[in-house]
Amino acid sequence: MKLLVLGSAAGGGFPQWNCNCAQCAGVRAGRRGLRARSQSSVAVGGPQDWVLVNASPDLLQQIRAHPALQPARSLRDSGIAGVLLSDGQIDHTTGLFMLRERTSRLPLWCTDPVYEDLTQGNPILRVLGHYCGVERHRVTADGATFGVPGVPGLQIRALPLWSKPAPFSPHRAAPVTGDNVGYLFENPASGRRIFYAPGLAEIDATVREAMRASDAVLVDGTFWTDDEMIRLGLSRSSGRDIGHLPQSGAGGMLEQLAGLPASTRKLLIHINNTNPILDEHSEQRAACTAAGVEVCHDGLEIEL
Amino acid sequence: MKLLVLGSAAGGGFPQWNCNCAQCAGVRAGRRGLRARSQSSVAVGGPQDWVLVNASPDLLQQIRAHPALQPARSLRDSGIAGVLLSDGQIDHTTGLFMLRERTSRLPLWCTDPVYEDLTQGNPILRVLGHYCGVERHRVTADGATFGVPGVPGLQIRALPLWSKPAPFSPHRAAPVTGDNVGYLFENPASGRRIFYAPGLAEIDATVREAMRASDAVLVDGTFWTDDEMIRLGLSRSSGRDIGHLPQSGAGGMLEQLAGLPASTRKLLIHINNTNPILDEHSEQRAACTAAGVEVCHDGLEIEL
Repeated sequence: MKLLVLGSAAGGGFPQWNCNCAQCAGVRAGRRGLRARSQSSVAVGGPQDWVLVNASPDLLQQIRAHPALQPARSLRDSGIAGVLLSDGQIDHTTGLFMLRERTSRLPLWCTDPVYEDLTQGNPILRVLGHYCGVERHRVTADGATFGVPGVPGLQIRALPLWSKPAPFSPHRAAPVTGDNVGYLFENPASGRRIFYAPGLAEIDATVREAMRASDAVLVDGTFWTDDEMIRLGLSRSSGRDIGHLPQSGAGGMLEQLAGLPASTRKLLIHINNTNPILDEHSEQRAACTAAGVEVCHDGLEIEL
Repeated sequence: MKLLVLGSAAGGGFPQWNCNCAQCAGVRAGRRGLRARSQSSVAVGGPQDWVLVNASPDLLQQIRAHPALQPARSLRDSGIAGVLLSDGQIDHTTGLFMLRERTSRLPLWCTDPVYEDLTQGNPILRVLGHYCGVERHRVTADGATFGVPGVPGLQIRALPLWSKPAPFSPHRAAPVTGDNVGYLFENPASGRRIFYAPGLAEIDATVREAMRASDAVLVDGTFWTDDEMIRLGLSRSSGRDIGHLPQSGAGGMLEQLAGLPASTRKLLIHINNTNPILDEHSEQRAACTAAGVEVCHDGLEIEL
């Protein structure tokens, strides 16, 4: 069993379509040390059937880049056995529209608050009802383990995270439990565990315990500094304000990851185009490497 | 001024993510005579500022493929001055989500029925209100000419078409005027006109007159035969049932195009992955060529 990194960038991708910062312009121009990245998504399972975890706007490109997701066993077929959502954000859900040609209902796992957002504020799931339809399964953040039919042997557990729901959510300003979850994937056959949390503003005791129990953690790599978007004049909100713990500084992600066992593989994912760790020659990237922290790229594979 | 074909395939694109028919499998395998195509969209204007006509799910890939749409005049910038919609279908509107990082409201032209569908059944425009926002302009199908600020010299006229609204529209079963429009683009400086109608089930006197008055027509190329999807076991609906005039047969698109002046450039666009004209070595493609009808491919440019 494996985890495939389909998309390692935050919303907008890298380069972002309308951005001409040094990094976005550089990756377009093919500058060394920069690598294009599509928007946030992973697949878990294999070798033929997979759970798609988040459905990014770049999903069609990601499927083309991973022939493992296209086993081609019949005239219309896919290796995507079902979809898990960690939240209701646009960069994690717009790809659901791209799956509308399915020949059967799309099995979909999400929490109640995410289901509400995706049937009310941005009712993608109701729209899909006019195409393939959705077979929705409730994700609870009570520690219960569940599986996805078609991906035997994979055990999944959701953990509530403190982050933010999507801007169109009625509880954007007052998040509720279940707006954001992380997933702990376990393969009992190998005894291996991977923790995945692309949006994470605080690490509480439960999340820390799950991270300590994992062989690999893929966590929020959105911003290097809390005021990154403000200093660039691109936003009035800090990283923490919009639900993302920055890597640098006191209490930041690098400090948090330093508390994990040396044997734990530590990876950053969901990286914003403004983040200097995208540049392999930057001092911030060197700081990650020195801390034993990897920066995910599209196509990275991790054994489970 | 130019028209750029950004995407020449119908919904799902070519190859379609979950399709393993001979054509989709062939294009994935690099078979000669087959060329990948992204989903339906064109841009009109230039050299720096353009009107995007329909916003396909493949928009980000299409922008990357056309550096002309990225003049990079400031930190955050785009050559897309505004968006025109010909209908409210998923394959013509999902790309609007990808423009959410705009630094100002997105100028958008659509008819009232399309606006209703995109604020009610699939309220993309309301969702965008939580990001960049939309500056909506009403398109009427009364013959009035309008322009798009930022694209000087381009004159646009909408023509009502008989086709079908999106499946989530309340008037799917009983279409109303404005559910679908074609666009006539005119550049008074060159005297040239292009007619664009990617979804078209019937050609009435008004449409025929606009086509006759054009130097180039880009029209619905979805299906070769009316029962194409039924024979392949992929649908229970005929092409005409879902709003697309097939190319072959009595009253079909090739017969309609034969009535135009020999000097008119005739092109098919919005081509479904099931359509044999996608294969350059097929007899159906040969029939198009013999009739003087071209099959659009992504990247095709037409002078306006």
